[in-house]
Amino acid sequence: MTPGEGAGAGPVIDGSVLVIGTGLIGTSVALALRRADVDVLLSDVAPENLRIALESGAGRLAADDDEPAIVVVAVPPRHAAHVIADASRRFPRATLTDVTSVKARVLREALALGCDPARLVGGHPMAGREVSGAAGARADLLDDRLWVVTPLDTSEVAHLRQVHRLVSMCGAYPVEMSPADHDSAVALVSHTPQVLASVLAGRLIDADPDHVRIAGQGLRDMTRIAASNVDMWSDILTVNAGPVADVIDGIVAELEATVLALRRVAGAAGDPGSSPLVADVLTAGVEGQRRIPGKHGAAPSAYREVTVVLADKPGELGRLFSVVGEASVNLEDIRIEHVLGRPSGLVALFVKPEAGDRLVAALQGRDFGVRS
Amino acid sequence: MTPGEGAGAGPVIDGSVLVIGTGLIGTSVALALRRADVDVLLSDVAPENLRIALESGAGRLAADDDEPAIVVVAVPPRHAAHVIADASRRFPRATLTDVTSVKARVLREALALGCDPARLVGGHPMAGREVSGAAGARADLLDDRLWVVTPLDTSEVAHLRQVHRLVSMCGAYPVEMSPADHDSAVALVSHTPQVLASVLAGRLIDADPDHVRIAGQGLRDMTRIAASNVDMWSDILTVNAGPVADVIDGIVAELEATVLALRRVAGAAGDPGSSPLVADVLTAGVEGQRRIPGKHGAAPSAYREVTVVLADKPGELGRLFSVVGEASVNLEDIRIEHVLGRPSGLVALFVKPEAGDRLVAALQGRDFGVRS
Repeated sequence: MTPGEGAGAGPVIDGSVLVIGTGLIGTSVALALRRADVDVLLSDVAPENLRIALESGAGRLAADDDEPAIVVVAVPPRHAAHVIADASRRFPRATLTDVTSVKARVLREALALGCDPARLVGGHPMAGREVSGAAGARADLLDDRLWVVTPLDTSEVAHLRQVHRLVSMCGAYPVEMSPADHDSAVALVSHTPQVLASVLAGRLIDADPDHVRIAGQGLRDMTRIAASNVDMWSDILTVNAGPVADVIDGIVAELEATVLALRRVAGAAGDPGSSPLVADVLTAGVEGQRRIPGKHGAAPSAYREVTVVLADKPGELGRLFSVVGEASVNLEDIRIEHVLGRPSGLVALFVKPEAGDRLVAALQGRDFGVRS
Repeated sequence: MTPGEGAGAGPVIDGSVLVIGTGLIGTSVALALRRADVDVLLSDVAPENLRIALESGAGRLAADDDEPAIVVVAVPPRHAAHVIADASRRFPRATLTDVTSVKARVLREALALGCDPARLVGGHPMAGREVSGAAGARADLLDDRLWVVTPLDTSEVAHLRQVHRLVSMCGAYPVEMSPADHDSAVALVSHTPQVLASVLAGRLIDADPDHVRIAGQGLRDMTRIAASNVDMWSDILTVNAGPVADVIDGIVAELEATVLALRRVAGAAGDPGSSPLVADVLTAGVEGQRRIPGKHGAAPSAYREVTVVLADKPGELGRLFSVVGEASVNLEDIRIEHVLGRPSGLVALFVKPEAGDRLVAALQGRDFGVRS
């Protein structure tokens, strides 16, 4: 296939793509490329993942005389630099990219190990699952996901363009950033939240079970990601150690100032008065939370929350959403709150304000208990 | 009505209940009691809340000669002690309780202000909404919720029993704890998570919007409660300052140790090796997260996650849950992941492992894109 000759519009990769590392992301990339009829070569030092990837139709075993147009390195962060540099030597004309979740250190070390700086363009697809390995891979895992592309100052435009093609053929959307910017960004929005969740959850180990039992949705939300894979995160935090330490330092400073302010009011007799600092921390939190884009990247908007009290029996959720569908109301978000120790639940439905009354009327007409 | 004369089984309150403070919780308590035909008296220094509460049928205006059997103080934490002590003087035989979210300091100060120690039994219903005020109140707000009851060493059993009756008549379930234990518990499971969410969200204010844009579900979960009411939380944190500062101190110490470990590997040349401490923090997080009871207070169980790719058009969620209902599959949990900048969404359905295959087959049979 030559450029422009592909089936219809859309990007075309002229040649084969070698995916090194057939874990969750590597195999998903391979499956997505196979879906687009790209010739995909696979290699992995782990025979089990490779076998699963081959059997699931993610590509064929790389042969000695294959000359891939693009090499995608999808190995754990600690091994990525070596594998990238090695690929640079073996395939002297290929575009080199990776999917490692940390960029500056990995790319810098790949260059130090002799990788061709003109052909290297880093990448990081913002997708993942709570499972890992080739068995968890899906052709559509990257569909509609953002994929950060981190060219070096030395990356040639032709190779950058190849990586953009790769991203598009996987169904994802590219966002360009420098490697250092990427690492600061993920340290803030992903790696530090992981550390905070883990440290907070860790405090529950020695807590009285009765104390943990009265926890509400807040603690559940704040510790959900603490259940993540330890080895994978240990690796990520180690390789992005500097930027993560910087973000945590800032958070520690703020927490220490908060503790000081709290100790001051705790020592006060009678009315503890108020602490301007504590109020400032809370106010900044409200402001910062608003900076997170809402659904579909649009500005966050104020939704109306309609809470439904649900009987805990099969089919109740189905019945609920059938009513929602019949009322032609589009749900913006859903949250299920579990009531501990009791066989019932609360479902919070978030809708555009103008749709709220219609939804409430429809639900009440079908005997749902509604709080609005 | 005399004890035992009530309509059928269930608890009976012999006399009227005075609710002082007609905000969200006070008015909800009043509405729940009215639902059970209890004579409810209302009072509030804020005329607007009082008017709404009266108009919504939450009770009648307290008269000079009313002698309530129970007084429920539902005012902000900073004012609770004074109001409790004042009620003790005005109603020398009434059971005295409150719904303040901080207990030891409030009850201690009420006693110091002359409250009768035999009649005082603190309480804290574990319910809330993101709205406040009488207008947000619901008769069923406390249904199936836990309500922490904190008797003093000096509380007489008859008054403790009255508070248990109150809790039951509101549809909630009592959990007994000492005031100090309650405060340590909420410092850990509610107040400190609030501070962490606020501090983390506050770091987003000065971040590059492109950095925030690549955030996934983790950051959203970790900052959701940062949107809470500043005045209310400022008040809560101030009154429970000591226990909250203690919990944050422990978290700061762990974060500082983590930063040290990260700085050590960040400084290492070549392979950063691994940090046993970082792995320990992550492992403790996994372990601690498991301590949070799952749905219905049962031990957390491993659910199968089935992810559905959903077209963003009205009725798709309804169609999805209709299929779930037809397949007679009970959903244990739902999570909606928004894909930024793209008109589609992912819905993660959590079901018992044995129901997974049936659900997947039903969804695929109705043309839903499924990842499992």
